[in-house]
Amino acid sequence: MKLNIACIPGDGIGPEIVAQAKKILDRIADVYGHEIKYTDLLMGGAAIDVHGVPLTEETIEMAKAADCVLMGSIGGNTATSPWYKLAPNLRPEAGLLALRKALNLFANLRPAVLYDELADACPLKKEISQAGFDMVIVRELTGGLYFGERYTTQEGGVRKAVDTLTYNENEIHRIAKKGFEIAMKRRKKVTSVDKANVLDSSRLWRKVVEEVAADYPEVILEHMLVDNCAMQLVKNPAQFDVILTENMFGDILSDEASMVTGSIGMLSSASLNDSKFGLYEPSHGSAPDIAGKDIANPVATILSAAMMLRFSFDLDREADAVEKAVKDILKKGYRTPDIMSEGCRLVGCKEMGDLLADEI
Amino acid sequence: MKLNIACIPGDGIGPEIVAQAKKILDRIADVYGHEIKYTDLLMGGAAIDVHGVPLTEETIEMAKAADCVLMGSIGGNTATSPWYKLAPNLRPEAGLLALRKALNLFANLRPAVLYDELADACPLKKEISQAGFDMVIVRELTGGLYFGERYTTQEGGVRKAVDTLTYNENEIHRIAKKGFEIAMKRRKKVTSVDKANVLDSSRLWRKVVEEVAADYPEVILEHMLVDNCAMQLVKNPAQFDVILTENMFGDILSDEASMVTGSIGMLSSASLNDSKFGLYEPSHGSAPDIAGKDIANPVATILSAAMMLRFSFDLDREADAVEKAVKDILKKGYRTPDIMSEGCRLVGCKEMGDLLADEI
Ligand SMILES: CC(C)[C@H](C(=O)O)[C@@H](O)C(=O)O
Ligand SMILES: CC(C)[C@H](C(=O)O)[C@@H](O)C(=O)O
Repeated sequence: MKLNIACIPGDGIGPEIVAQAKKILDRIADVYGHEIKYTDLLMGGAAIDVHGVPLTEETIEMAKAADCVLMGSIGGNTATSPWYKLAPNLRPEAGLLALRKALNLFANLRPAVLYDELADACPLKKEISQAGFDMVIVRELTGGLYFGERYTTQEGGVRKAVDTLTYNENEIHRIAKKGFEIAMKRRKKVTSVDKANVLDSSRLWRKVVEEVAADYPEVILEHMLVDNCAMQLVKNPAQFDVILTENMFGDILSDEASMVTGSIGMLSSASLNDSKFGLYEPSHGSAPDIAGKDIANPVATILSAAMMLRFSFDLDREADAVEKAVKDILKKGYRTPDIMSEGCRLVGCKEMGDLLADEI
Repeated sequence: MKLNIACIPGDGIGPEIVAQAKKILDRIADVYGHEIKYTDLLMGGAAIDVHGVPLTEETIEMAKAADCVLMGSIGGNTATSPWYKLAPNLRPEAGLLALRKALNLFANLRPAVLYDELADACPLKKEISQAGFDMVIVRELTGGLYFGERYTTQEGGVRKAVDTLTYNENEIHRIAKKGFEIAMKRRKKVTSVDKANVLDSSRLWRKVVEEVAADYPEVILEHMLVDNCAMQLVKNPAQFDVILTENMFGDILSDEASMVTGSIGMLSSASLNDSKFGLYEPSHGSAPDIAGKDIANPVATILSAAMMLRFSFDLDREADAVEKAVKDILKKGYRTPDIMSEGCRLVGCKEMGDLLADEI
């Protein structure tokens, strides 16, 4: 099979982790007889440095021309990033939001899994973590507060800022459908998270989710308020299978869930449209403080590449092989610094990539 | 001193926990020579059952006529509450939001404290919890998505719902000032939480907070994105002193923080306006499943009464006495079921109230 992949290494540790993911994809291509063409694209801070803007039309077009996009990470810690003082629409993250919209990537999937071998890294106590957990957060990614009308103005000399949270039933319908489809392949439980006791958009959300649920009688649907969900993720993460929610709540809850695993260096993500196109990137950020030191954990990006094989190319066997390699390497005790623990063998970013490639 | 207190027992466990808080206040009045007049008011589900609406004009007027309000809790679990099927503006919580607005309670203070004696209840592992933590979340309570324009409509047969997030600089200024004032009496650190990489309202928030910070050179100000804050609360809660944030983010983060303590039955809250008026209620909900069983933990409500003594009446000595009694009773090993652990003595709601009263 021919795989036509656009690569956006991005900022911070992006380039080094994407290099390892390419290594793994190349190995997969060798072993299973595929052919990969990469097209490297600039975006985020890297694009600002060259073009003065985080995302150009040309980059969007080239991304669209590919089968899918593999991304490192964009931007940085807002407070310390060198781009912090730029106008909002010139910041690296602006490129990311624009790209999501341009490619219509409305479904963001973020698994949050506790690996047995990494249970010690989990910030929760044993009584809770020993139950294990394996959930996926299905976050709406092209609507809500992120893309509503916004402006800053003055009223009688008083500055005022407005953001708008809008959802229509089609936007809710398609993401809910994704959530239920994913649940059908998992433990068949959907927790839809909203703030229906306050927001009109959440009340519409709840209604449409219930309408979609009618098509999936096998799936158990429960509704949970967002404040309660933020509590339950800490108290009893094992209760969750699929968490389905809107853009801003999903941003907050998926980061909380990833931290609850204790190993965000291991967490992949996929952002999908309604065909086979997708953008795949680690759940974690660009970690500018450790960039270029060969100590970043490439596994999240590598597992994102596995999601790509699965969702964009239907190469399940190949995706399984990557995921198995990750599990085997963990069992053998190799660890990057972020997940290091006693008795394990410390390896760098590149070495972890080599080990995984050899394992396939 | 004469204390004129409006009481709103509310729904679920509300009545039984408020009864214990009154017992403690009466004891304080005896010991320190004060005189208390209580005016009991109906609100929430309790008011719907009698008046058909969660909050009447008369209740608002009577609350305003008092020095402050002591509340149990309003509403219930949205999914299971008997009022769930009511229209949004007839649900119990609608009364709560309307009351906050009518009384101009723009500053919501929610302490999240890990008590040494309850460290076992903390869901975090020892390596993290042993550092202890003691933070207060200062949440803006009368603006943002909660009170912006909202509507549901149809566009070409497609249902659509809109909520609006608005802040003006005065609203941000006054809550920021409260945050810094509180920090001055604590460890002098403010973490302002926003989503300034996406929202206009957050960018204005950040600017105004920085302007206010200029008046408090002794206080260290840091900005944190809301998704990162949701992670840091789990990873390293000890880093926080005062978390300052807008209404919806505060709703989510304060519940997360309360769960991180592991003992939400112990957590008080105060909602203040810019004079001495305040509404005091536990951080937890109405827990309809355990209502009327005399097993609820009254301490959160009792500590809320202590906050009332401090903020509305400047009775610091009396507030200290209540807080000391709580600590002493914990040391003596008395526990309600929610915080029970081995070797401790199990007591009910009423008995806990009696023990605390005797301790003062
Ligand atoms: C960088 C930022 C705009 C982005 C978001 O909020 O969506 C990030 O936090 C994420 O979750 O991918
Ligand atoms: C009941 C609900 C409307 C309320 C809120 O969201 O403010 C509650 O969650 C709270 O935090 O006091």
